[in-house]
This record gives sequence, C-alpha cells and structure tokens, in this order.
Amino acid sequence: MNAVSAAPPITPLRWRAGLELLDQTRLPHEEVWLRIGTVAELAEAIVRLAVRGAPAIGIAAAYGLVVALDEPSDGDPAATVAAAAARLLATRPTAVNLRWALEAGQRALASFVELPPGERRERLLAWARELHEDDVARNRAMAAHGAPRLAGRPRVLTHCNAGALATGGIGTALGVIAEAFRRGSVAEVWVDETRPLLQGARLTAWELGHLGIPHRLITDSMVGALMSRGLVDAVVVGADRITVRGDVANKIGTYAVAVLAERHGVPFYVAAPLSTFDARLADGAAIPLEERAGGEITHVAGAPIAPAGTLAFNPAFDVTPAGLVTALITERGVLEPPLSPAIARALAGERQ
Amino acid sequence: MNAVSAAPPITPLRWRAGLELLDQTRLPHEEVWLRIGTVAELAEAIVRLAVRGAPAIGIAAAYGLVVALDEPSDGDPAATVAAAAARLLATRPTAVNLRWALEAGQRALASFVELPPGERRERLLAWARELHEDDVARNRAMAAHGAPRLAGRPRVLTHCNAGALATGGIGTALGVIAEAFRRGSVAEVWVDETRPLLQGARLTAWELGHLGIPHRLITDSMVGALMSRGLVDAVVVGADRITVRGDVANKIGTYAVAVLAERHGVPFYVAAPLSTFDARLADGAAIPLEERAGGEITHVAGAPIAPAGTLAFNPAFDVTPAGLVTALITERGVLEPPLSPAIARALAGERQ
Repeated sequence: MNAVSAAPPITPLRWRAGLELLDQTRLPHEEVWLRIGTVAELAEAIVRLAVRGAPAIGIAAAYGLVVALDEPSDGDPAATVAAAAARLLATRPTAVNLRWALEAGQRALASFVELPPGERRERLLAWARELHEDDVARNRAMAAHGAPRLAGRPRVLTHCNAGALATGGIGTALGVIAEAFRRGSVAEVWVDETRPLLQGARLTAWELGHLGIPHRLITDSMVGALMSRGLVDAVVVGADRITVRGDVANKIGTYAVAVLAERHGVPFYVAAPLSTFDARLADGAAIPLEERAGGEITHVAGAPIAPAGTLAFNPAFDVTPAGLVTALITERGVLEPPLSPAIARALAGERQ
Repeated sequence: MNAVSAAPPITPLRWRAGLELLDQTRLPHEEVWLRIGTVAELAEAIVRLAVRGAPAIGIAAAYGLVVALDEPSDGDPAATVAAAAARLLATRPTAVNLRWALEAGQRALASFVELPPGERRERLLAWARELHEDDVARNRAMAAHGAPRLAGRPRVLTHCNAGALATGGIGTALGVIAEAFRRGSVAEVWVDETRPLLQGARLTAWELGHLGIPHRLITDSMVGALMSRGLVDAVVVGADRITVRGDVANKIGTYAVAVLAERHGVPFYVAAPLSTFDARLADGAAIPLEERAGGEITHVAGAPIAPAGTLAFNPAFDVTPAGLVTALITERGVLEPPLSPAIARALAGERQ
C-alpha cells in the first residue's frame, strides 16, 4: 500500500536550451510542453494559467528574465530585464512569490551586468536554475517538517493544487501529504475539485495518481458534510501570499474550508515557503485579490452550464484570517500561534 | 426595475390527458416535455432528476398514482396503486414529501375505491390536481410570510434550486425571494452553482432570468469570500426534510453556507411547506442521505474533468443543525427558535 510510484518526478517547467512549460490547462487529458520564446508568450501563459501556483509562477518568471535577455534587443540589458519584470509582474496580482523572484533576479543581474553578454546570460540562467533547485529543496524541508503533524491523521483533505505542478517540484501542501503517506500515517487524500478551474480534479488528482496515493474526489460543497461525519482528520493547503500577521491568501474556497475545519476541530495547516510571506503587509484585507472573467464560471471545458448571458462574479482568491490557521509549515520549521512573532523570527532567520 | 416578467408561470409538470414533465436535465439549453406513460417511466425520470425538488417529486408521484391506474392491469386497484407507491417511494430516500404524497394518495383512494373504474380514476386525478394546486397556494402563503424578513436585505443568496421547478409552481425559497423583489426589498440574487449537478447555474439562473430578477452566478466555494466582504444580506434555501427539532436536510453544500452565514451574522432562512417536516424524526443524523454515482462529479455535461478512473464520493444531501437556522418559513407562518415547540404547534395546526 505504501509503495510510491517510480515514475519520474513531476515538474511544471524545465529549461532545455530555452524555457518549456507543461501546459496545465490541458491536464489531465494531455501532456503538452510549450516552448516559450518571448516574454510576451510567458506573460500570456501565466495569465491563462498554463503555469500556475505561486512558487511555480515565481520560478517561471525567473527563467523569463533569461528569455528577456535572449530576445533581440539593442537596449541596455538591465533596462530590458526591468521591462520584462514589469510585464511579468502585471500578469497576476495576488501571489507574492512573483514579485519576490523578479526583484531577486534584478538584484542578481546588477551584480554581474558588466560581464560580456554571453557570460551575463549564463550567470542569470545559473541564478534561475539555482532558484528552481532551491525551491525543490525548500519543499523537501517543508515535507520533513510538516509530515509529523499528520501522524495519526489518515484522512487528509487538500484544496486546489499545491503540488509539484504549483512549485519547482514536490509541492508544498502535497509534498507534506506525500511524505506523510510515505511514513505510513496518511492513508487517503480527499481532493476537492476547486471550481471554477478544477485544479483539484484536474491537477491534484493527476499528481496523486502518479504518486500512487489513494484519493477520492469531492465537490467543494461537500467539505462540510465530510467533516460533520468525522471523515476528515486534517487539512493541508498551500498559499499565494501570507501577511506578517499570518493571514493567508489562497485559492477561492480555502476560507470556507478553514471555517468548517475550526467548527469541527480539524487541524488546518498551511504549507508555504518563506517567499510567500509579504513582509510589507500585516492585514489580509490589504492583499490584492485577483478577479477573473465570468466565463470561467458560466462555462466548463468550453460548454455553457448556465443560460446564455448569465452574469458571474469570479474572485480567484480569498483570505483566511490567522486565527483559523493551526500552524504554518515552512522550510524553516512549523510556525505555531501566536503567528506574528513566529513569522517575524522565521523571516529574520531567512535574511541572515 | 421592479417590473416582473409577463412570461407564463414556470411549472415543472402538468397533466394534459396524461402526466408531462419538463425535463430538467436538459435545462437551461432546451425545454423538452416528457410524456410519462408508465410508473416505471416516472420512477426512472425521478431517479435521473428529470423532475427534482422535494415538493415537485411529491406532486409528480401523486399524478403517478393516476398513471398506475391507467396502466393495463387486471389486479385490484388498491393493490396496483400500492405497488406503484412502493416503486416510486424507492426512487429517492431523502425528501420526505414523496412519502407524504404517496401515503395521502392511498388514503384518498381508499375512500372511493369502490366507485366504478372511470369515476375512481377521475376522483384520484382530481385529488392529485388539488394536491398540486394546494402546493402552489402554500408557496404563495410562504412567500407572503417570508418576504418581510428580507426587508432592508437587498442581496440575497440561495443554494440549489428551490423555485417553481422544484415545486408545483412559484417555489419555496425562490418564491419568498421573488415576492421580496416585487416589494422592492431584494435587488439582486447571488446564485451559487450547486455542484455537482449545477441546479443553481442551470435552473435557478434560468428561473430568475424568466422573472426578470437581477442575479449573479458564483461557485459554491465563493460564498465565504462574499460574506467576508459583506456582500450577502440574507440566505434563503429550501429543504428536503426537516426533523421536529428543526434539523434541515437539503442539497449538499447547504450546511457550509449555514456555517458561514452564522460566522458572518447573515440570517439563514429555510423555506419549506409542512409536508417537508418528518414528524417521525427528531435528530437530523437519522435522516437517510442519498449517495449518488461518482460520475456526476468526475464528469460535467458528459466530459471528464478528472483523470480516467478517479474515484469520487457523492453524498447528495447534508444536514444543517437547527441551531444554525434563523427561522423556518412555512405556509403557516415563520417559525422562530426555539424551533421544537414552534414546529410542534405548526404541525398540530396542520392536522386540525
């Protein structure tokens, strides 16, 4: 039962003499790799969610700065990269890892911008690869820190996809869950479908299938019924942005899961790297929450599910207040309430 | 703005020298009337949700007893009808109106079973028509009792479909909301899509469009985010079965809406006729909750949304405990907490 699949590890993006993205809009039905030739193509791929998940977007953007250098240009390389960063930053407002990676890339470039073009480009690519590998290492650390929290909690629920596909590899929430499965504590995962874009049904179910971890799909509306029947032992989700107080912006629907978990005494864990924390924000109400087109709700896989012309409201994220979070699982350990000082300590450690 | 559409009233079923059902599985895209020639056809239509909604199922079953008499048979008419009732009762376990209508029909038949066949059949049809008209009258009374509760509450949320399509006409929850709209208090309705079978997106949006009532569609996972932003002033839903203590079985996802409403101080109303109350049950945990096939979750409109072979869990209903119910809106008035004595009084009044 605990055998883990020997399939090659899942990754949402790779550099093969150029950036390639696994088109997540076509999963689970087709595995199509997109070759990204320009920053404009990358921006478009991020907007339409061909690559998604806060850490994965950050890593894609890091490689995107190399794509920018590779585009024909007679401008100043720092200005070229800054323009690319501005363009990529504008794609999605909620996840903070994007800003974090773009700022880090520009700082890195500044330190070797005077090198000859070829060498400069190799250094930036090396930086992006390192960021990518570092993300995987942080996910591994998160899995090791978080897995013990699931001891004796065989039935774990997750929302959206915070797996390998949402990161450089391994995943945040799904990394923790997979490690707990390997240790024999998690036996089955409840996957909620995560409307409107079905990241749970399409992506998390696909990843768990690859990993050989038993799972069952439910609709988002079933979480309360499952908890009231005692069928959920823990929740683990990812995050798109976390304030210094511990308020968590994540995929729409996360907040409802947290409220239900509190009511039923089910621990609610958030797994996220420190790059997800926004040191500039205390209050979750200040997090910009992306609104997307209503067509994502009125249509499923291109087919209408509502009368023609039906208006929809489509906030893509919500904010779970810190008070509903049992603990934050990071690469520097599990942060327990009171979260503010724990987060401050972790971020200070990271800056050292 | 408050002009109500002059379109003919919506009804999910009619008797035109035989029973006809508006096939709700094909709404909102096509309006197809099914001619029901046999009890077996009716049972199949109920199981596949061509007709659904607790009161509408009860009325369809009432007409179904006439269909049973019209089928060729050399048996005793009471036995024929009893066999039909048993078959129809087995179609769906949660809604209690089905049992209520079938028992009432058999009692009615017993009082005129000795009449000649043609006259007996006319009497049973007259009884079914009266049950149908009575349901509409009760919905009208419910609307009148409930609408004042929405005064000063312009943005109302409803879950699933408790409209004309779910009843003999007018609707329970949607009847209350439409009446409050006519009175100028409700301005806009939040329609949650109600996965897996999308009764909100397909049926409630369709009804509100017919009525000319502004509405916006959301996914079920957005209710919490809306409430936390202060965008919902009241919730009104229907019910499939209510215990004498006031625990409410209704479409899966209702419970989560109720928990979120309580957290945000949003009134949570349940509108249902007294035929929905089960005098035999006190505790909601004793209500049988239908489980349906996993394919309803793994597929939308026939197209797969998850990897092939993904297992799903599909409870069709959940139970909202009485403590989360602000008030029950019935045809005999609005029942306030403490609900047990209020329900007992209403049911005693009904039996007089």
